[in-house]
Amino acid sequence: MIDAVHLLTEAEKLTEWWSPRVVGRVNDQYVKVAKVQGAFVWHDHADEDELFLILKGRLRIELEDGEVELSPGSFCVIPRGVRHNPVADAPCFLALIEPVSTRHTGDVETPMTRSINEQLGG
Amino acid sequence: MIDAVHLLTEAEKLTEWWSPRVVGRVNDQYVKVAKVQGAFVWHDHADEDELFLILKGRLRIELEDGEVELSPGSFCVIPRGVRHNPVADAPCFLALIEPVSTRHTGDVETPMTRSINEQLGG
Repeated sequence: MIDAVHLLTEAEKLTEWWSPRVVGRVNDQYVKVAKVQGAFVWHDHADEDELFLILKGRLRIELEDGEVELSPGSFCVIPRGVRHNPVADAPCFLALIEPVSTRHTGDVETPMTRSINEQLGG
Repeated sequence: MIDAVHLLTEAEKLTEWWSPRVVGRVNDQYVKVAKVQGAFVWHDHADEDELFLILKGRLRIELEDGEVELSPGSFCVIPRGVRHNPVADAPCFLALIEPVSTRHTGDVETPMTRSINEQLGG
């Protein structure tokens, strides 16, 4: 059976901030949802692009040479190797697309880092 | 520079039905937008999953053993090898995620088939 998944509904079920949950897979990429508030942490992903799609609220992604502002229905792709720091000045619900191998803090270990296994078990 | 892209705004710029346009790339996948109306054509993609995300309107995806109904904000993934036929009973705007190599009619050649080059040039 192939299911329809409503992204915002899934994101609103989350209980933890900055703790993405896998809601689908297309080829070698996971579709994840997250709810975020405040600043995350500066990081990059050496070999992987990361797509952010806003479902509700707004997200700023700080870059070393500026920032991207995202509103509902908008996405951007942070290319591999580009240092970035997502910041939500108010609660924001979003979807992510990134390879099955991505750790969301890149090579930076923080208390917010979740392994893929934790996400899939969560 | 990293741009914010509003999916529905891009989809509403399209002038042709069933003619997806590439609006982004994340890793080895394209993000495309399309506007569709009526029935497409039965097809599959032997080696590639295809993600449909509805931006506005509704889409039914007919399957050999049923169908999936999608409303705005919902997505589904048609796994590789699964025959399907997208049908929009009224105009529908959607986003697609599929590998850079996908032809949107699979191995079926129809007048609606667009090559990647045509899309990128369009």
